This record gives sequence, structure tokens and C-alpha cells, in this order.
Amino acid sequence: MQKLLDTIQSPNDLRKLSSEQLPQLASELRDFIIDIVSVKEGHLGASLGVVELTIALHYIFNTPNDLLVWDVGHQAYGHKILTERKDKFDTNRQWGGISGFPKRSESEYDTFGVGHSSTSISAALGMAIASKLQGDTEKCHIAVIGDASIASGMAFEGLNHAGVTDANLLVILNDNAIGIDPSVGALKNYLTEVKEGRNPRQNNMIKSLNFDYTGPVDGHDLNALLKELDRLKAIKGPKFLHIITTKGKGLKQAEEDQVKYHAPGKFDKTTGEILPKSDENLPPKYQDVFGLTLVELAKQNDKIIGITPAMPSGSSMKFMMEAFPDRAFDVGIAEQHAVTLAAGMATQGMTVYCNIYSTFLQRAYDQVIHDVALQDLPVIFCLDRAGLVGEDGATHHGVFDIAYLNCIPNMIVFAPLNERELRNILYTAQLGLPHSIAIRYPRGRSENTNWQLPFEKTEIGKAIQLQKGSQVAILTTGTIGNNVAKALAHIEHPEQFSHYHFGFIKPLDKKALQNIFNTHETIITVEDGCVTGGFGSSIATHALNINYKGTVKILGIPDVFIQHGTTAQLQQYCGIDVKSLKEIFAAYLK
Amino acid sequence: MQKLLDTIQSPNDLRKLSSEQLPQLASELRDFIIDIVSVKEGHLGASLGVVELTIALHYIFNTPNDLLVWDVGHQAYGHKILTERKDKFDTNRQWGGISGFPKRSESEYDTFGVGHSSTSISAALGMAIASKLQGDTEKCHIAVIGDASIASGMAFEGLNHAGVTDANLLVILNDNAIGIDPSVGALKNYLTEVKEGRNPRQNNMIKSLNFDYTGPVDGHDLNALLKELDRLKAIKGPKFLHIITTKGKGLKQAEEDQVKYHAPGKFDKTTGEILPKSDENLPPKYQDVFGLTLVELAKQNDKIIGITPAMPSGSSMKFMMEAFPDRAFDVGIAEQHAVTLAAGMATQGMTVYCNIYSTFLQRAYDQVIHDVALQDLPVIFCLDRAGLVGEDGATHHGVFDIAYLNCIPNMIVFAPLNERELRNILYTAQLGLPHSIAIRYPRGRSENTNWQLPFEKTEIGKAIQLQKGSQVAILTTGTIGNNVAKALAHIEHPEQFSHYHFGFIKPLDKKALQNIFNTHETIITVEDGCVTGGFGSSIATHALNINYKGTVKILGIPDVFIQHGTTAQLQQYCGIDVKSLKEIFAAYLK
Repeated sequence: MQKLLDTIQSPNDLRKLSSEQLPQLASELRDFIIDIVSVKEGHLGASLGVVELTIALHYIFNTPNDLLVWDVGHQAYGHKILTERKDKFDTNRQWGGISGFPKRSESEYDTFGVGHSSTSISAALGMAIASKLQGDTEKCHIAVIGDASIASGMAFEGLNHAGVTDANLLVILNDNAIGIDPSVGALKNYLTEVKEGRNPRQNNMIKSLNFDYTGPVDGHDLNALLKELDRLKAIKGPKFLHIITTKGKGLKQAEEDQVKYHAPGKFDKTTGEILPKSDENLPPKYQDVFGLTLVELAKQNDKIIGITPAMPSGSSMKFMMEAFPDRAFDVGIAEQHAVTLAAGMATQGMTVYCNIYSTFLQRAYDQVIHDVALQDLPVIFCLDRAGLVGEDGATHHGVFDIAYLNCIPNMIVFAPLNERELRNILYTAQLGLPHSIAIRYPRGRSENTNWQLPFEKTEIGKAIQLQKGSQVAILTTGTIGNNVAKALAHIEHPEQFSHYHFGFIKPLDKKALQNIFNTHETIITVEDGCVTGGFGSSIATHALNINYKGTVKILGIPDVFIQHGTTAQLQQYCGIDVKSLKEIFAAYLK
Repeated sequence: MQKLLDTIQSPNDLRKLSSEQLPQLASELRDFIIDIVSVKEGHLGASLGVVELTIALHYIFNTPNDLLVWDVGHQAYGHKILTERKDKFDTNRQWGGISGFPKRSESEYDTFGVGHSSTSISAALGMAIASKLQGDTEKCHIAVIGDASIASGMAFEGLNHAGVTDANLLVILNDNAIGIDPSVGALKNYLTEVKEGRNPRQNNMIKSLNFDYTGPVDGHDLNALLKELDRLKAIKGPKFLHIITTKGKGLKQAEEDQVKYHAPGKFDKTTGEILPKSDENLPPKYQDVFGLTLVELAKQNDKIIGITPAMPSGSSMKFMMEAFPDRAFDVGIAEQHAVTLAAGMATQGMTVYCNIYSTFLQRAYDQVIHDVALQDLPVIFCLDRAGLVGEDGATHHGVFDIAYLNCIPNMIVFAPLNERELRNILYTAQLGLPHSIAIRYPRGRSENTNWQLPFEKTEIGKAIQLQKGSQVAILTTGTIGNNVAKALAHIEHPEQFSHYHFGFIKPLDKKALQNIFNTHETIITVEDGCVTGGFGSSIATHALNINYKGTVKILGIPDVFIQHGTTAQLQQYCGIDVKSLKEIFAAYLK
């Protein structure tokens, strides 16, 4: 029997089906997602949870004329498959393939690029206001947002504005009580009460913001969804539909272990079992070095507190949350709050490790400047997933942090070379630092398996010479220094090359720099951050300050947005993989 | 008769008074504020509105042991006067004097530095959690936040977290229906309903977030305030007190024109009349050049939209709001939403001028990167109050913008030399640009009175030579170039100095730079932004890229937080005033 899904290239084809056929299509779409993600990897649970919603939206609304915005976008696989990308869905998240998130340049159905959370209401409201100004009062504008994302402040700002407009906006709350980790906060508790019928003042929160509220509706009941969406389509002004779904719906294990099946890696599509990875004898992930070291330190120092905005699993803050539940806080997707909460705690003498992915700290930039650095509070920022993150792509690379932190007075900025340096700076930070420190480290595995060594105090502001040479000094910061070391290991005449590791991007080790400038005619800097305003730029400015007359070359992330692929592919694109580096260095051989 | 206020140096003295004496003290405190602010200038209305609250808080709570956080801090003059700073209150906002905002380094009663809005709940919650962890269950932690500030997303994030803690936190909503301009948004409408008793589901919004809600209470009724605060002091966990006040209370004109009397400048303390300024024949404010030009352009181009987050008066967006109410939006204190709303509109072909103070764009940094630049949407950012802002001080200087924007791909960054250039770039931007542009310009008056000249198209990326010389090339960006021109006007041997104005910080005019490097042995860059990662840093990096062997000197804001004072005093501190510049340049004379 031909599958219904085989007949569908675009929503136009979908709309030719009868509503009775849609449950079968939902089943096929779910299988299609499972088939491919089980082999090609990716985000699974979120898309399985909105299969019915995705079908219902494209069935009822006239996409792409009606404008559909998916918040975050983890859940948009079904959308991609139904909107002309079924045949290339197996290239998902691969170099040159389709993005794991909605992306405007990829399809007219992707009305707004996402990746970070809580933007959908603002974006869709902007579209709706624009439509109205252009005289189109029929066009529908739909934001689909999860319960973890709607708790972020930006979403509230969007609702607060939308409620006083007559914009043709439908906000659909996809309430599954989980983001990547389980949702938290008072709003989540409130929604749970609503769902369970325990709230006698049902839904006033949304009504208070002047939305026409409907719900809660079973988001896996296609008939109910079709009926409600059809009804809401005809209502003008801001509307709010609250639906209840199950993340991972349709795959037993994914429903039962929603955190693990958010992005499970390869799994057996029949049994659902995650395929074992042989990770014995591999070095630990930087995340675990952070998380396990923090617990070690917290055992000795009762002033230590951990904060994560909604990434307990991803950041490994979960270890601290398990060991010291009173001293570790998942505040939800609330980076702004996370930073100022940390500042408030620091005023009372607490030693706060605030772990935020580099790309998400962009959300709390003002709080870092205004609440932490200006008051010179010694908050310890742990910037996970700094540098290139691989398959998550352009929205998630942590490549701007050096530039945006370097310019802030009173900040120390540090990038360890390996897990031992990460461990030691985490130790050193809680001994008491004069300023706030940002510690940036990448996603993934570190260098050495034997990492749980006794703590050593890191000397603040000191660079380290890794190799001594005569002509060219290569200055690196962070783990990209390992690529440089590998490149130098196989170069001809290694004696011509010095290699210095600047763990401290700020303050720079000016004494070491003076010595380097005195003894080398060429300086090459290498970083896995943007070259504009980054580490190399700092070195270059300092070189000019002291009238260095040699050559300075800056390597790093060029001034473009880097797309998705493996980290190795992306490093190659940027020319900072081992092979590219070796070639560049070799050109300086005398 | 001795005034009660004369007997009070600190809250300890206040607590010796009987509650019957407090209304008189309130009257005296109000007079004291009016006496000094009428002469010394400053923020008036907000502090007048919370005189009773300020007295009641310090009377009931055991400050500074109990921790009091004022949101934004415009309203903290009474607090400062009652907490050991009465005698130096006449130095408010002056160079070397006390800050216009609460500031930790100034007093132990200022528990958290503020200036930007909506931080108080997060900060006070952090303090409350820290107290609990340290075993202090008696200490009270109070956040006083206005209705404009609580509508900002960050405040929601704080409430959402606080509601699931048992922290000893009291949030006081000072509801006066106005920030600097009148409050907006659905929450404001909701609060108005509550106040007027028109909401049958009263206060569920706050209760939904699991707060113990009390209110609304008349915030000018000292007895009512004392009674409620005393009661709430004994209740553990998160509590919320909603009080109603009148901004400008006690000065008739300030109550009647709350926007003008937010910071009225000098006024007659008896009549309340604002003293006339002789501003005839002065050049226009940059703000008005922006606002009036936008209206001119909007008349011709119906795609033009204006957005301001809560600064219609300050930014002069009010002109567009008056002329085209459907096409100009005050979204409240919601910078994140403002930027993504603009991005959403831009996807539908609208030409959006999003006007945000430079310092407040820090609040929407991620949205600029993720929602605008990554998607290469041509949103036009107008960064008001870039550079040194004078008396508002460290929290408000717009000195990081060049650094934090320069590193973003797909951005054009422009700083006009004068009002004519501002006008022309506003014109050019709506003709269609390939990327988003950030236009940064300062607070205050421009250079020429005759500014409403016919529009001329600005060539993107082109630098302009203002003076031709032989030895030293001075490269400037933005209005600080006028200081340089004045310094050069009176220097010996001006023929040795070239002066180039780089309106475009990004992209740099590399052709002009090549020529400059070829013909000058010394380069001096001058900017009113931070030297780290700024304009000069870009020039320096480019100089090294093309192997320039001359000297490059970078002038600008040093790597420290600059305090408050007149802009002239702050420029002098940074060495970028006319006199300092002239001395620096003269040292290069041959």
C-alpha cells in the first residue's frame, strides 16, 4: 500500500487528504522521523510530540501565506518533512544539509529562524502588525511555544504587548511540562494546576493579558485540534490556545525518559533502545569535568552555589543538584535572572558558579555588565559550549564571547587548554578572586583520561610556554591550542616555532608578551572565537602599543555566521583544523 | 522649630520618632528634595512619589541588616537622604559627588547598584536565598519595583523563580501607572482594572505565581503602609504588596505633568514653574534630529515603522507616535521584544527604525545577533545616548556598543559627525541597505542650527577627509571628531595633521586606510567608546594585517567604568576633551 506520506511534498498535498486520513498520516510521519533520526541522530522527542499539531496547522492554515513561527525549533522536523524537505531530511544537521532548526534561507515555510528560545511571540506579532499595516486582515500569524520557553521573560514581553494590539496573532502553548529538562517555576506549577483541573480561577493569567484563551486541549487528538484551530482561525485579535502533549509521543522509551530522548543519538528504531557507544577509556566531557569538580569543591566549601538556566543535563550541573539540592538552582530559561540572582547572592558572600552556554550568555549581556562587573562582584561564569558547537549550527556557536566580554572592565576571561586547567581554575576561583571571571570551554571531550588529579592553584594572568622556538611565536587560547600542538608535532623544523598558551585572555600576560615580541619576528594567534575584537585583536593592539615591528597574523572564526556540520568540518572551514594550521605555519618556515 | 529631618542622620534616628510624627517628616523630606533638586537638578517625580513608602520601610524594617533593593533607583533620593547622605545630597549627580542611583560603594544601605530597570526581584531573591543558606531566617529582603519595570521580562523571570522558593522576599509594586513615560501593555491595563476595582478575578496573576498578595494599598497613607509592612514582616516566604502612588506627589505641577517633571531641570521651588532655558539659536538635540527626520521620511515612505522601548520622550520617537500613531510603537521596558518585533516586521518588508539607548541595547544583544544579524534582516537600530552620557553615570554610558556590535557579522555600524550626517544616514537607510545598521549618536545638542537641509544619500563604507596634513593622521568616528577638529584648529603647524572622519566603523573604508597608511608615519584614533575592541582596535588590527610599520595610538574610554559628572568633565577624565587632545597631538609635532 502506498503511504500517504509518499503523496505529500508540500502542505497543498496535505490539504487534499480527508480529515479521516490524518491519523494515519500522523503515524507515518512519526515513523519517518524515527526511521531517520535513529540513524542520522538529531532532536527526537520534541518533534514526536507535535506530529498531530504540525499536521493540523498545515491542514487548517494556508501556509506559507499564513505565517507559522516555531519557537526554539527542536520540534520542527515534522514541519520540515511536510514542507518540501522530506527527500533531504536525511541530511539534517549535516554539513551542506538542511538545518536542525527552521531557517528562512532554507524554505519559505520557515518564516523565522530560531534556535534560541522565546522569540516566537515577538516575531509573529511583528509579522501580524506588518500584515495589518499592509491591509491584509485575513492573514493568520501563529506562534507555537513550549511551556519552558513561555516562562522566559522575553515571551512575557511579547504577550504583554500583543494583548493591547488587535493583531491577528494566535499563540499556541505546547504544554508538555518539559524543555530539554523538566520545566520549573511558578508558571509551570500554575499550568499544572490548570491541566489537572485544580485551579478554580482557571487561566486568568493569560486572560489577564487580554488574550482570548482556549484550552487545555489534548494535542494528540487530531479532531479536537482541527476543530479548535478552525474556530480560532476565524477570530480576530490575539488568541491563545493551550494544548497538552507528551514529549516523545509514540516511542515508548522516549515518552518514559524524555530527557535522554531529547536528542538520543543513534537508537534501534524498533526497540527504541539507544545504541551503546564505546566510550570506555575516552577522556571525560568538559561538562562532566565541570559538574563533578563542582561537587568536589562544594563538599569543602559551603559558600559554593550552582546556577543553571534550564541546562542541568547539558551542563552537568545535575551532579551538584543531586549532591546539594539546596545549593544548586535550575531557574528555567531565564539567563537574565540567572545572572542577577548570582549577583544578589554574591553580595551576601556566596561563591556562585553560574553556568550558561556561551551563546545563551548573549541573553544576559547587560546583567553581566550592569549587575556583576560594574559592582565588581566575583561571580564565576562557566561558559559551556564556547567556540564551534558542531551540528546545532549558526544559532548555537559560542564564538562571540571573547569579544563581548573583553571590553567589560573588571572581568577576568579565561579559556583552559584542557580538562586539568578547567579543573584547576574552578578550584582557584573559589579561593577568592578580585573580579568576576568567565571560564569558556567547549562542548565535548577533553584531552586526558587521567584528570582527577590533586588541585593546583592557577596563577591569575600568567601565560604558559608549551614549546620553545626561534622564529615564529604561536599564541593560542583555549582548547584550540591542542590543534596547534598537533600541527607543530609533525612540522618540519619545529625548532623555529614557539607555542604559548594564554589561558588568560584578560588580563593578558604583558610580561610574557614583551618577551615574545622581543624574541620573535612573527606572531600568529589562534582562537576558536571571532577574530573581530577577540584574543588576537587584543594581542595585536598590545603589539602596536609597544611598537612591535614584526608581523602579526590572527587566525580564528571569520566575520561570517558559521553554519552546521561536525566540529571538525567547521574548523576546516575556518582554517583552524590541524591540517590547515600546519600548512599555514609551514609557509613561515625559513 | 527644629525640623524632624534635622534630627535624622540614619534610620536609627528615624525609628526613635513616634508614628504620629511621620507625616510631618514626610512633608519635610518632600520639601528637602524639592529645595535641592530645584537648584541642583535631577530626577524629581519618582522620589516625591515614594516619600511615605521610603519612611515606612526604614521605620518598620531594620535596615541595613534587612536588605532593601530599589528598582531603577530614580526614586531613591528620599532613601539617600535618610541614610547618612543628607549633608551631601546637594552633590547629587556631580563629579565626585553622590550618584543619582543607589550604589554599593557609596553606602551599606545601598544593597544593590541599579540604573537599568527590572533587576530588583532577582537581586533581592539572590540575597534572600543566601540568607537562608547562611541560617538567617529572620532577615527581610525587599524589592521595590514600579509598574513599568515589572512589565519587563526579567522581572517576570524573577517572580517565576521566587514563587517556587520559600525565600523571605517581599516584592512591593509601586504602581503609579508611569515610568519615565506612561506605562503601556496588557499588564498595565490589568493593574488599572485591579486598582479601579473593575477586575472580578482580582490579582490572580500574582497569586498564580504563588505569591501572598496584598493590595492595592494607598501608598501615601502612612498608617496603612506601616500596618501592612508590619504585618508582612512577620510572614515568611514570597510576599507581594501592591501600593498605589502618584508620581510627583506634593508638587502640583509635577503631579499634573509627570513626564516633564520626571527630571525637570531647574525650577522655582515655590511655584513649581520650570525655569526657562535660553535655547534659542542653539543647534537641535540629536534626539530631535532623529525624531523630526523620521516623521519627514515616514511621510514619504509608508513602510517606515518606529519602535521605542519606553523612551518616546527621551528619544523623541514621540513625534512619530503623534504623526503616525499606527506606525510607531512604545512597547514598554522590553528591549528584547522590541528588537525581535522589529525583526518580525522586517521579514514582511517593513523598514523599521528601532530606537534604543546604547546602554539598553545591551539588554537585547542576543536578539540583535540571533534574530536580526543572523537572518540578515535590514533593521535600522538608532542607538541614542551613545558615548558618555554625563550625570546619569556608570550605569548609563553607551561606551560598549562599538565593541559588542563590531564582532557581529552582517552589521553596518555608523557614527555620524554631526546632525547633518545623522539626518542623511536616516534617509539613506530607508532607501534599502544590504544589512542591518546601527547608528550611534550622543545625548544632547548637535553642531549646526541650519540642519534641515535637503537629503543627500550617504555612500556606505566611505570615510571622509576633513583636514589634509603630512605627518600624523587622526582618525575619528562620531561626534568626538568635533573635539578633534577644535583641537586641530588651534594647534601649531596644522599642516602636519590629517583628520579623517570614519562614519562607518564597519565596514571600514580600507581603500582610504591604505592611502592613509601609505602617507602617514603616525596614526591616532579617537572615539568615545571603550578602547578595547572598539574603532581604534579595528584600525590597529587592519594596520597589522597590511603590515603597516608606523605608530598607531588609540584614544578613547579606558578599561574602567566611568562615573558621573558633566560630559565635559568625563571627557577630560578620559583624555578626549579638546584641551587634552591638543596636548597629545602637539607632542607629535616635528
